[in-house]
Amino acid sequence: MAELDKDTARLLGQYESAVFKKDVDAFMRLYDPAARVFDAWGVWSYEGAEAWQRAVEGWFTSLGSERVKVSFDDVTVWSANGLSSVSAVVTYAGQSADGQPLRAMQNRLSWVLRTVGHVPRIVHEHTSAPLGFDDQKAILVRDRGL
Amino acid sequence: MAELDKDTARLLGQYESAVFKKDVDAFMRLYDPAARVFDAWGVWSYEGAEAWQRAVEGWFTSLGSERVKVSFDDVTVWSANGLSSVSAVVTYAGQSADGQPLRAMQNRLSWVLRTVGHVPRIVHEHTSAPLGFDDQKAILVRDRGL
Repeated sequence: MAELDKDTARLLGQYESAVFKKDVDAFMRLYDPAARVFDAWGVWSYEGAEAWQRAVEGWFTSLGSERVKVSFDDVTVWSANGLSSVSAVVTYAGQSADGQPLRAMQNRLSWVLRTVGHVPRIVHEHTSAPLGFDDQKAILVRDRGL
Repeated sequence: MAELDKDTARLLGQYESAVFKKDVDAFMRLYDPAARVFDAWGVWSYEGAEAWQRAVEGWFTSLGSERVKVSFDDVTVWSANGLSSVSAVVTYAGQSADGQPLRAMQNRLSWVLRTVGHVPRIVHEHTSAPLGFDDQKAILVRDRGL
């Protein structure tokens, strides 16, 4: 993977950190107020940061004492003045309160980022897992050994 | 939905037309040679137009004498100089050879477009269906009555 530009590297780090700390405020600061999120789970579209925040609060609360270690692979960036896009494979690895690895899951992730006042924020997120042709069930792990 | 800009409206029309005609060449002209496609079905990522074209040929061939009428809803566009993004809900409605409606399926669709020589082409596509929380099966229809 080519070295990432500073803005993208910072954003990925902030996302990883906010999820690990289950810090809703830090997490939501990454999103534009008008963000449209196509999340992998249950809902077709979250329109606006308020709707998305309620889902994120539900996610973090559902974790109880567990934590989620996020990592990004195969990151690709397209950028222009004021708008950029990041795509990646993201791994969500659950840990128990004492740091023991639990289950892990992978998603494809696409972000569209708009830069306002020098800060790129997510205006569009799309996460998903590919579907098995036969059973229409999600294929939730790409990499063996997870 | 706000009126679409000319470039986006043209692209959506070209996509609809290429799918309906099962015209692989017209379809692939919408994509950048380096396109990365996160398709809803079976495969984590197609890296480059060549890999994607083989999948598209398989799709069109699998249709036999049937046709697919594509339509887009809830289209949102973000654009900057040289880069833009489109997100939408896309409906793929199957028709028999004599135009009778068969099954229909919906996806969330995200495109990232890079403009080279005044022509915006898809550098990144992400299509998916949300997954049921309980059974991890795809929810393939958003709108009732399809």
